Amino acid sequence: MGGVTVLSGGVGAARFLRGLLRVVEPTGVTAVVNVGDDAVIHGLDVSPDLDTITYTLAGAIDPDRGWGLSGETWRAMEQVRRYAAHAGIGEHDEVGNDAAGWFSLGDLDLGTHLYRTSRRRAGASLSEVTVEVASTWGLRLRLLPVSDDPVRTVLHDTAGRRLSFQEYFVRDRHEVEIAGVEVDGADHARPAPGVIEAIRDADAVVVAPSNPAVSIGPVLAVPGVRDAVEAARDRTVAVSPIVGGAALKGPADRLLRELGHRADVVGVARWYASLASVLVIDRVDEVLAAEVEAEGMRCVVTDTVMATPGVDAALARTCLDAVGAAT
Amino acid sequence: MGGVTVLSGGVGAARFLRGLLRVVEPTGVTAVVNVGDDAVIHGLDVSPDLDTITYTLAGAIDPDRGWGLSGETWRAMEQVRRYAAHAGIGEHDEVGNDAAGWFSLGDLDLGTHLYRTSRRRAGASLSEVTVEVASTWGLRLRLLPVSDDPVRTVLHDTAGRRLSFQEYFVRDRHEVEIAGVEVDGADHARPAPGVIEAIRDADAVVVAPSNPAVSIGPVLAVPGVRDAVEAARDRTVAVSPIVGGAALKGPADRLLRELGHRADVVGVARWYASLASVLVIDRVDEVLAAEVEAEGMRCVVTDTVMATPGVDAALARTCLDAVGAAT
Repeated sequence: MGGVTVLSGGVGAARFLRGLLRVVEPTGVTAVVNVGDDAVIHGLDVSPDLDTITYTLAGAIDPDRGWGLSGETWRAMEQVRRYAAHAGIGEHDEVGNDAAGWFSLGDLDLGTHLYRTSRRRAGASLSEVTVEVASTWGLRLRLLPVSDDPVRTVLHDTAGRRLSFQEYFVRDRHEVEIAGVEVDGADHARPAPGVIEAIRDADAVVVAPSNPAVSIGPVLAVPGVRDAVEAARDRTVAVSPIVGGAALKGPADRLLRELGHRADVVGVARWYASLASVLVIDRVDEVLAAEVEAEGMRCVVTDTVMATPGVDAALARTCLDAVGAAT
Repeated sequence: MGGVTVLSGGVGAARFLRGLLRVVEPTGVTAVVNVGDDAVIHGLDVSPDLDTITYTLAGAIDPDRGWGLSGETWRAMEQVRRYAAHAGIGEHDEVGNDAAGWFSLGDLDLGTHLYRTSRRRAGASLSEVTVEVASTWGLRLRLLPVSDDPVRTVLHDTAGRRLSFQEYFVRDRHEVEIAGVEVDGADHARPAPGVIEAIRDADAVVVAPSNPAVSIGPVLAVPGVRDAVEAARDRTVAVSPIVGGAALKGPADRLLRELGHRADVVGVARWYASLASVLVIDRVDEVLAAEVEAEGMRCVVTDTVMATPGVDAALARTCLDAVGAAT
């Protein structure tokens, strides 16, 4: 079957995919997407990474926030917060504190969650709904949740609390210290239809510049996925999400440190050495290239910060070249 | 304790309550509200009658539609329908066809359902959430769902289908022929805290001009409620929702006929004779007053159509006078 398969988190993966779609036929691209961030918020099934990718590739993402839709309105959430304020419900009060309104769902974005929730309650799988949503937005790549079963990232903070990813990331603004990460449900989850084949049969597998611990980790935790990627190691290239010792977005650097890893490209190389034969790092980290190669990966140095136009497509081309895949 | 307790459905009851609050102290009014119309739509807990009353009494109801909020926007639903149209999902396709978007939830109104759903998932009862929502809107009467347990009106059509109230009323625009009505869950439901006392201790009990079969019926079906109203029969007055042989709103007339009842004030009198000592009917039905009294109820004739300003308050005063309660 060939093509390119991208193991994906949210924002960084979405930007990488946008570039990739400029250099290869969309129908040859499969994104295998993290669902560890998925959550039930106000009773609705929310899949942040799938939606970020969909909205980004549709050109509908809010460019300033980096998540959610451009031109969004917030009437529903304003009303939620009015009730919560009147009832004196705070963000940290109790189980179910999403009532406080800390997870902002835009009015238009709510349409996606309302639809997804209805479809899933009617028996449709997350994969099926994802196809329906993505094709409505005109997407032509294949977007696959890594699993249709519940797989949930759980973070343990140093105070002994169990936090869902959204509690950690959104509610607590990733300002708490993390002692460990686990992926609930992963042991019994099955890869979604097509996931293993997409990795096995791809000309190139790319590990997108996403958080290794909480975005790519849950993808690899689904039984069969890590094995499939390891078997494709020669064709697999990872892009470091750490540039100059810091995450471009989100808490990846801090989290890697808290989990006992180096928060630089060498730390990323150690994380991915068994999975990918190549690590692509940014020019600012060129001095660490030899250390990356000492971890057993070939190191390719290029521009990786996709804020500049054209960098995304060039980065995608570099990744494919690095594992000998045609563009 | 005294006060006035009103057995309530949606629109008609809301208008009656608005008038009542002009003639008695709000803190002396308790509305015991139907929950048989409640539904889970797109995964959200929707309580149409409670919300119609809240929005009406807050002066926030859309005056043209008669339901939902004025100044409402529909961005979320438009997005839902975009997905459904693209996926070819129709209103009658399968279980879970709310994905088609036939139940219109406005963006601001969604805030109410999102909040309610979060609170209930966190363990709050419907009664508790109802207090939180009503007091946020500045309401001072006591608004009680008849039960915190699931009580659901189910309609059987002549084609042998089981329909939820919203499927019948909204999706099918009450254009199907009904063979029977039952109230699922009523046998095991408990009255919400305060419901029985509010009926037992009231100076006056009013059966609001709501659909006897599908609004008041489910209220009476909760164990203990019918007995409490019958015990208060001397102090109980019903307002006919049928005027000139037709329902002012909704399918009450047609439904009464389909269920084998007369669709006029005499039919209403038969329905309520064991519960209320007085039936208030509109002047257009004056000719039937003697027939109403033959059913064993005292008949009071007045203006009952609350579209005209002032009629609501006068109607409330007439009801209280009819059972000797002070205003």
